[in-house]
Amino acid sequence: MEQNRVGHYKFVAEPFHVDFTGRLTMGVLGNHLLNCAGFHATERGFGMASLNEANYTWVLSRLAVELEDMPRQYEDFSIQTWVENVYRLFTDRNFAILDKKGNTIGYARSVWAMINMNTRKPADLLSLHGGGITDYICQKECPIDKPSRIKVDDCEPDAVYNAKYSDIDINGHVNSIKYIEHVLDLFPINMYKEKRIKRFEVAYVAESYYGDILSFYKQEINENEFHIEVKKNSGEVVCRSKMIFIN
Amino acid sequence: MEQNRVGHYKFVAEPFHVDFTGRLTMGVLGNHLLNCAGFHATERGFGMASLNEANYTWVLSRLAVELEDMPRQYEDFSIQTWVENVYRLFTDRNFAILDKKGNTIGYARSVWAMINMNTRKPADLLSLHGGGITDYICQKECPIDKPSRIKVDDCEPDAVYNAKYSDIDINGHVNSIKYIEHVLDLFPINMYKEKRIKRFEVAYVAESYYGDILSFYKQEINENEFHIEVKKNSGEVVCRSKMIFIN
Repeated sequence: MEQNRVGHYKFVAEPFHVDFTGRLTMGVLGNHLLNCAGFHATERGFGMASLNEANYTWVLSRLAVELEDMPRQYEDFSIQTWVENVYRLFTDRNFAILDKKGNTIGYARSVWAMINMNTRKPADLLSLHGGGITDYICQKECPIDKPSRIKVDDCEPDAVYNAKYSDIDINGHVNSIKYIEHVLDLFPINMYKEKRIKRFEVAYVAESYYGDILSFYKQEINENEFHIEVKKNSGEVVCRSKMIFIN
Repeated sequence: MEQNRVGHYKFVAEPFHVDFTGRLTMGVLGNHLLNCAGFHATERGFGMASLNEANYTWVLSRLAVELEDMPRQYEDFSIQTWVENVYRLFTDRNFAILDKKGNTIGYARSVWAMINMNTRKPADLLSLHGGGITDYICQKECPIDKPSRIKVDDCEPDAVYNAKYSDIDINGHVNSIKYIEHVLDLFPINMYKEKRIKRFEVAYVAESYYGDILSFYKQEINENEFHIEVKKNSGEVVCRSKMIFIN
């Protein structure tokens, strides 16, 4: 039973999904993690499709990824995912990232809410499906820190970006993965030559839309740690991110 | 034997790979097509990995895609690919795109060269592997026009873009799929609300690199047809594209 609680999905690092170093990009890894969350939930009856019928949908609130390594071009890798906790308004879903040999090279933590698509109000996870989600809570270890609070003081934007066609998902929002890509693009390529990302965090605060002007504020905490805040138009925060590099 | 010459690969339209209409984006379809080319070549002994060992690599020259429909979010679809012709310096590879029921919803044509990675000079495809590639030539029909010549007169750029970390592939070049995404982003979202892409073409002329300033020149031929030219820095053309919409 404990085994069935963990979903396990296989991937290969495609050529257009790796960066100039030949390693999978954080955006693509994020996409795979969120897909695995979807596969795992769907297989257990609480995925997007069945929820949509009942007018509910999952909303990603936070994602934190910590890695010792990244799959290289053409390498097989896999992702495990499981539910760590279910609260009334949030659920914690964790991930392990395994290399081609099956060695764990990283972990991720995510926090999700469920909302009613008509009222946009959060749903009570403990009452949904008669509390059935809690049957899948699993004690597998995830030895990385929880997503942290991210605070940005900087007041000059490092980049300004106009949300375009390719940024927009089926809900009409800038999609969660595109924010990650735009945050990665705030750093010069030399940063990725000399260092790699040890930990990446993103917290989704509000939605942004086609045509929104997104301002990216990047604060250097030290030579390896950066906090980023993304604001739209008049100044509302849409997401925050933290990047920790390692030499 | 004729059957074995056609590669057939299955996919699903992932949530972050569909646009606001819920249909797969042309960039993601392009990525799948190029991956299929890679799978097909690798399985038959003339893929990137075996070529790289011999210091040769495939270079995509042209891609033309024509579609009646696009897969929707979560839908299964599949891609067939085969070699139509092999010349001394180029090979024509075609594709069929099939929906979840196995009905063909579109075709694509691509033109590839092979280069020596040390000299950057084209290789003779007919002599490579003792001409083994020609064994895979296949007569399957591909009832769409060949990639056409694209000419752009317009002299004011519609968009200027600075190539960033996420654009760059393992060879240090702006990757073929990113050009497609940037071209799609030249059009306002209303265009994709009212119309869909019937035919998409791209011709890759030269490489561009991190930090290059890419200028996108878009010429309206008529309300449904647009020709695009992308130039870098001092004005060298890096790629051309054609978009034909249908209501």
